Amino acid sequence: MPPPPEAPPPLRTWPPGPVRPSDRAHVALRPAEAARITGGFWRERRRVNAEVSIPQGPALLESVGNLHNLRLAAGTAQGTYRGAIPFLDSDVTKWLEAASWQLADPDTPDRSTLAQAVDTMIHLLAEAQQDDGYLQTWYQVARPGPHFVDLLRGHELYCAGHLIQAAVAHHRATGREDLLTVARRCADHIDDVFGPGKLVDGVCGHPEIETALVELHRETGERRYLDLAGYFIDRRGHGLLDEDDSRGLAPGPAYCQDHVPVREAETVTGHAVRQLYLLAGATDVAAETGEPELRAAMERLWQAMTTTKTHLTGGVGAHHRWEDFGDPYELPNERAYCETCAAIASIQWSWRMALLTGQARFSDLIERTLYNGFLAGVSLDGLRWLYTNPLQVRDGYEYHGEDQGARRAPWFTCACCPPNVMRLLASLPHYAASTDRDGLQLHQYADGAYGGPTDGGWVAVRVDTEYPWQGRITVTVDEAGTGEWVLSLRVPRWCPKYTVTSTPGGTGSAEGAGRPAPEDGWLRIRRTWRPGDTVALELGMEPRLTAAHPRVDAVRGCVALERGPLVYCLEQTDQPGTPRLDDLLLDTTAGLTTRHRPGLLGGVTTLVGSGLLRRPGTAQGDWWPYRTVRGSTAGATEGPAGTPARADAVVPVELTAIPYYAWANREQGSMRVWLPTC
Amino acid sequence: MPPPPEAPPPLRTWPPGPVRPSDRAHVALRPAEAARITGGFWRERRRVNAEVSIPQGPALLESVGNLHNLRLAAGTAQGTYRGAIPFLDSDVTKWLEAASWQLADPDTPDRSTLAQAVDTMIHLLAEAQQDDGYLQTWYQVARPGPHFVDLLRGHELYCAGHLIQAAVAHHRATGREDLLTVARRCADHIDDVFGPGKLVDGVCGHPEIETALVELHRETGERRYLDLAGYFIDRRGHGLLDEDDSRGLAPGPAYCQDHVPVREAETVTGHAVRQLYLLAGATDVAAETGEPELRAAMERLWQAMTTTKTHLTGGVGAHHRWEDFGDPYELPNERAYCETCAAIASIQWSWRMALLTGQARFSDLIERTLYNGFLAGVSLDGLRWLYTNPLQVRDGYEYHGEDQGARRAPWFTCACCPPNVMRLLASLPHYAASTDRDGLQLHQYADGAYGGPTDGGWVAVRVDTEYPWQGRITVTVDEAGTGEWVLSLRVPRWCPKYTVTSTPGGTGSAEGAGRPAPEDGWLRIRRTWRPGDTVALELGMEPRLTAAHPRVDAVRGCVALERGPLVYCLEQTDQPGTPRLDDLLLDTTAGLTTRHRPGLLGGVTTLVGSGLLRRPGTAQGDWWPYRTVRGSTAGATEGPAGTPARADAVVPVELTAIPYYAWANREQGSMRVWLPTC
Repeated sequence: MPPPPEAPPPLRTWPPGPVRPSDRAHVALRPAEAARITGGFWRERRRVNAEVSIPQGPALLESVGNLHNLRLAAGTAQGTYRGAIPFLDSDVTKWLEAASWQLADPDTPDRSTLAQAVDTMIHLLAEAQQDDGYLQTWYQVARPGPHFVDLLRGHELYCAGHLIQAAVAHHRATGREDLLTVARRCADHIDDVFGPGKLVDGVCGHPEIETALVELHRETGERRYLDLAGYFIDRRGHGLLDEDDSRGLAPGPAYCQDHVPVREAETVTGHAVRQLYLLAGATDVAAETGEPELRAAMERLWQAMTTTKTHLTGGVGAHHRWEDFGDPYELPNERAYCETCAAIASIQWSWRMALLTGQARFSDLIERTLYNGFLAGVSLDGLRWLYTNPLQVRDGYEYHGEDQGARRAPWFTCACCPPNVMRLLASLPHYAASTDRDGLQLHQYADGAYGGPTDGGWVAVRVDTEYPWQGRITVTVDEAGTGEWVLSLRVPRWCPKYTVTSTPGGTGSAEGAGRPAPEDGWLRIRRTWRPGDTVALELGMEPRLTAAHPRVDAVRGCVALERGPLVYCLEQTDQPGTPRLDDLLLDTTAGLTTRHRPGLLGGVTTLVGSGLLRRPGTAQGDWWPYRTVRGSTAGATEGPAGTPARADAVVPVELTAIPYYAWANREQGSMRVWLPTC
Repeated sequence: MPPPPEAPPPLRTWPPGPVRPSDRAHVALRPAEAARITGGFWRERRRVNAEVSIPQGPALLESVGNLHNLRLAAGTAQGTYRGAIPFLDSDVTKWLEAASWQLADPDTPDRSTLAQAVDTMIHLLAEAQQDDGYLQTWYQVARPGPHFVDLLRGHELYCAGHLIQAAVAHHRATGREDLLTVARRCADHIDDVFGPGKLVDGVCGHPEIETALVELHRETGERRYLDLAGYFIDRRGHGLLDEDDSRGLAPGPAYCQDHVPVREAETVTGHAVRQLYLLAGATDVAAETGEPELRAAMERLWQAMTTTKTHLTGGVGAHHRWEDFGDPYELPNERAYCETCAAIASIQWSWRMALLTGQARFSDLIERTLYNGFLAGVSLDGLRWLYTNPLQVRDGYEYHGEDQGARRAPWFTCACCPPNVMRLLASLPHYAASTDRDGLQLHQYADGAYGGPTDGGWVAVRVDTEYPWQGRITVTVDEAGTGEWVLSLRVPRWCPKYTVTSTPGGTGSAEGAGRPAPEDGWLRIRRTWRPGDTVALELGMEPRLTAAHPRVDAVRGCVALERGPLVYCLEQTDQPGTPRLDDLLLDTTAGLTTRHRPGLLGGVTTLVGSGLLRRPGTAQGDWWPYRTVRGSTAGATEGPAGTPARADAVVPVELTAIPYYAWANREQGSMRVWLPTC
């Protein structure tokens, strides 16, 4: 039984989370060793994850066959393999990773039931594992035969990677060795098979094992796991994944990032999740080896992704076909793929970049992605999921269920996203803070406690905030260490002005009112701290109208509404006076007011503005939606081009915008993030 | 040997073309029985088709294995099946259809070689055909086993449809029975198998056979072919094509239009080519049966397609994934699929609708699609093809060859488009004119001669024009019939003003200057005609700026350039002063001038205008392409929202636009149809 909430275990004794650079790692920052979220926005999302989403896992994995398949491999059940996807095992191990991080949290409801389910699943995996360490039910049961042959599609190393990540999580969270033993046997088998001069010289079609192996190295101290990760990074991009293009419809080597070595790549491309898992792994390798070339490639690729291939929500991946990145500035709205898993992968990569470099911009992107592109992936009740996260659902949206459509579903046949959401939410506190020798850095603002070692000893702070609804963040020093150290607070890039005050007023250099955000995103306060010292950061939360780079064709003539870290959207259901959302113009001459509505969507601050409802003047029976706005010999204007709508009837209406993350939780209808202004 | 060009055979003796409604058909118009194109724009495109594209067919079909596969089925060759697509045979029959229409044209170069190649291929098909009439090499050789089992993917009726269409073309063009006999044996076999109370109650995943069977009915007089076509129309939409969704990634029944019976459908949806072939077939059935409900559905669906799902070029099909129609007004530019085959299918359907209803709007759309979305599908030299026809290729376009990318290729593994282009160009004269009891109608303007029967006897006209470069169309009556009849000239919807004059000035009611286009698109001139009478129609060819319906999000704040029936585009190579096409704004305050350039791209009229080259003000090292244009409490404006680009540096440049159909014929580079104005 966990201790009662009123007497949580001392912060210092909390187990660590994901991404734990080794002592020799070349990183600027290390994740706060102890981190917990105790209240506010993310506690509620994590509560639903712990009470609803994660506990559902075992029954779902049973009902769709994943556990049955493990029993078939173990020889403890009979029947036929269920499902037609080679990587079904990874749903189990991703759930195990989520459950493991969750077990570390004393707030976890009905913890013993969860622990029992975890043990059952670990037992299943151990039983299913072959004597040589191999474990993938698809190739043990459904397609028995030689292993590691179809590296392009087989997902064998991908599944091993998720097994390893689950084992690392379980070991860190519980101290137990049983799942780690399974994972090490699997990793050792792969290390026996893969490598220069070994049986197979190749890489997996779906990166994932790279970051897992680095974490396994960190957890076990075994250098060869890091070397194997480095081998997989080095060998990708040399055309080892030969595509069978007999239908002429194969995605080509860029799909798997096998078209160019990662150190030479100029931009992110191909399947978004594969690309970002690969880069997370490459960043892990760079962190451990300190290799400048690999680090420079990571910085270049991150810049290319954010500058030209990231949606406002932080979502990435433009195309449904091949689930891949688009061209630079190709950022469609309704056909934005923005897979939930890609948002998670982006967060995982950016966090590794934040630790590697110490730069705040990586956590800026994490914040944006967390609150928007990621969080939209799970319903407020924790029961339903979005695989893709479009920024627009058009009036008349035709849902054929043909692919991952813009409606929530209780599970997917390819169910990569739900357990991925679970594992990120379960480990979320560990993305909020870091330490270095000189102090503690707060990257994300969530009610909770964060601590870790510095040169001055263990330091810890408490955070109290109504963020993201309010901009005030109060940081109280709980454990002050000795001597001066720097408390660093990230001032988000979106924030136009902030104020900071401290009690008692110390010698901190950052006090002041209405400052613009610091150039590098870090507000640093250096002083000797005492327990009980507080710093209050007040971020300007004025709603904002946001425009895109003019090369983003998809949103020309539009603005989006944002407030704090939240991107807003209009849902049809909130606009009773607007029969068609797509006929709406935002009246940018009117202001936006905020209205907090505790009863709406679990409690959200809405933005209320003014719109103009355009009634397009298409004649009845006309059949062509294009019209001449001007014969163009000079001077023969009939009105300014580009504003044909001005002639249409226009009716003023009130608009209510909700945070994007909360969309698709009520009746189905249209939605849009970007609002036309002309 | 054909007669020398200076002495062509009398028009009246020319063989008919596709779509030949039976005597009992309920159609307003019938295709002109004799039609030929003798000069001008389309003669040149057809010359390349006849001299280059079609003659290439046999060697290409040999090199990629289609003919080899037929020999395998015939038992006259040994080896393994080549290719991995079940419908490879249709490439052969589509080429045969093209070659057959071409054989009817005395202008055909090296006609005897072509006739010999046709005979060889007919012989191959006859040899490959089974005793029971079945003919599809995929299921005879590559996947032997029961037939008509995988109706969803097997394309068996689709292949039969193309065989039948080729046979009808061959019979009409040459009067010969040999291919028709093969086709009838195939159709009879299908009629034995399919139908109520027969072996199979089902439809094909890919419509095509419906229109083919109606044409076979027309050619043979056999009612049962029409009934079978009607059966296939009636049975679709009842979920007979059960999708195996074991991967959760199947397109769903709408992909094959099996989600709703065609008479109840409210809009076009699913795979665009399948949808439009189906509707062509349904229109054929409605034409022969006169069924009002089916006709009403056709009119409703055509309206839905043109109003909400057609690109400016006439191209249709928004999505790469599933090659299908998008939502209403979802008309993306660069990811526009706009498959060349879908443009052809649209033309084929619209022509049937034009004949059924007599309305000019259908031929308006045909004209637009012919000159733009269709014609872009083949290179000017007739050697290379586009499978998809996007309206934009972005700066930095990443070509991975992963699917049908925006570059021309000499052939495709799924080679549906090239022979489809060939067959439409070869039969094109038959889409230009029609007759009814009361006279003759000109739908498309191409140098040539067109004639057919009316109540007053055989009438025929000659057309002389430099269209689409010039707006003057001179129609001379060659055979005048007896009594009054109506010469109807389509005044295109794009045309703001026209003038018409006739020599000798008769009693026609339509003379005048600068009239707006007639409401229903037909300029009708009723009189008693004498041979040598002329009518000169002058269409206003002023360049136009065109805007889209405001619901078309993809092109907000943009206009397109058009002149006559041509949509224009900018290609990077024509803008020496513009390093990035995507940084360009059209200066709508300046005029557009036309410049005919005989040496450019086979001779095109270019449009020259003024642009502003925007140099976006992204700070070096900045990583986020979105920016706050205004904190939004009322009054706190920092400038008008939606116009963030105004702050950027702007440099005036000259722009040269070329007709869209001629793009991608020089070096690769960016292209765009829609030009930002703000």
